[in-house]
Amino acid sequence: MINVIKIGGNIVDNDALLQQFVKDFAAVPGPKVLVHGGGVMASRLQKQMGLTPKMINGRRVTDEATLRIVTMVYGGWCGKHITSLLQAESCNAISLSGCDGNVICGSKRPAEPVDYGFAGDLNEKSVNADFLLVLLNQGITPVINAITHDKNGNLLNTNADTIASTVAVALAQKTPTELTFCFEKDGVLYDMEDDSSVIAKITPADFELLKAEGRVADGMLPKLTNAFTAINQGVSSVIIKHARNINLSYGTVICSHS
Amino acid sequence: MINVIKIGGNIVDNDALLQQFVKDFAAVPGPKVLVHGGGVMASRLQKQMGLTPKMINGRRVTDEATLRIVTMVYGGWCGKHITSLLQAESCNAISLSGCDGNVICGSKRPAEPVDYGFAGDLNEKSVNADFLLVLLNQGITPVINAITHDKNGNLLNTNADTIASTVAVALAQKTPTELTFCFEKDGVLYDMEDDSSVIAKITPADFELLKAEGRVADGMLPKLTNAFTAINQGVSSVIIKHARNINLSYGTVICSHS
Repeated sequence: MINVIKIGGNIVDNDALLQQFVKDFAAVPGPKVLVHGGGVMASRLQKQMGLTPKMINGRRVTDEATLRIVTMVYGGWCGKHITSLLQAESCNAISLSGCDGNVICGSKRPAEPVDYGFAGDLNEKSVNADFLLVLLNQGITPVINAITHDKNGNLLNTNADTIASTVAVALAQKTPTELTFCFEKDGVLYDMEDDSSVIAKITPADFELLKAEGRVADGMLPKLTNAFTAINQGVSSVIIKHARNINLSYGTVICSHS
Repeated sequence: MINVIKIGGNIVDNDALLQQFVKDFAAVPGPKVLVHGGGVMASRLQKQMGLTPKMINGRRVTDEATLRIVTMVYGGWCGKHITSLLQAESCNAISLSGCDGNVICGSKRPAEPVDYGFAGDLNEKSVNADFLLVLLNQGITPVINAITHDKNGNLLNTNADTIASTVAVALAQKTPTELTFCFEKDGVLYDMEDDSSVIAKITPADFELLKAEGRVADGMLPKLTNAFTAINQGVSSVIIKHARNINLSYGTVICSHS
């Protein structure tokens, strides 16, 4: 069983949480893949450089200057920092953007209806699962960031949840694969104001109801959409949980049926 | 024969030169490794962020803020940009810092006599040649930047010429290897003011004379030292040339004897 584990930018940006996560992740047995964001840090660097981060529907508009910044932050600092911390825990990791070994090939999102600039979309052929398996078979742990490429020389800023889901689906075609989304909450909350209101499991019918009631919004909506894509396309299990619970079963389980 | 080719920051920073170099590099036949700098861009980003680049004897003093910047620039933008351009030329490249697959493990330079901060030194055991050969045997071209790690969770800013030389020596223990230093001059110049005064070959005795005459200075001194280290430790040939001449024989040949 391969574990694909995604951590959000709030974990990556918090050194105490990240250090603990790295120790816990290194202790996960068996082959594994880490997918990480870094959006909080990217926005901070943009502001330090006098630029204003621009978001539409929770997604970053990526002009040329922004592309350079997110590539530096995700592929540079975050990827290399996490990888060096994992190496110190004797986890032989390797940081990858999509261009590296052509591991994830995206396409530039059409400028209509919203022009997100250098934003990448993925499809079922985007992931080079064979190369990931070469690395895993060498005992190497891929650490994938949110930068992909289009094979025409362009880098593309790509949603990290989508990358995690697409990677898990591609690996699941080859060998059984689990997917875990880790963030700074204990799971999907029924009441966003109440951290103890974790929903134990969500079926497709539950998801429709939660959307209708306005209980999932912002980043949680694409995260759940990606989670259902994964569970419906061959991934063995999908769970959303707190980063500190990576080796515990506590969290929200995504079910493909009721 | 493996070709290890190093390009300097002035090429990486010049989009026209870089685009042409990438096409020429992709056309180099056989297994190859690219090592690149990015110092010009790092200094510019430092200034944009209100920091002052600090150099001693031509080497960057790397405090924590500077380490983050050079990791972002070398491992982030430069590495991923070059790799995506190579992918567009059907060269299946992969960008690596030393932490990636533990490919180059350095040690923090002692703070005496000069404290360079997070600067990395290498030795003959630093390079994981086996992992480079795994990639080369998969038809993948490593693109190595100037960030190494110490296996204790620290990243280290490391001279790219030293990396190129150490990588070439390590590979040469396994299989015949050539080393080429590419930069924005046609070779080592006898008269730094005269671009046509390229020295065809340099022996150890010539090198001593050039140093005594003050004809090699700044970056050329460590470059030549690294070149002689390589030719004296098993690398088949070492040449210093213009980036545009990568597939031509014109340049300065380093000789291990007179």
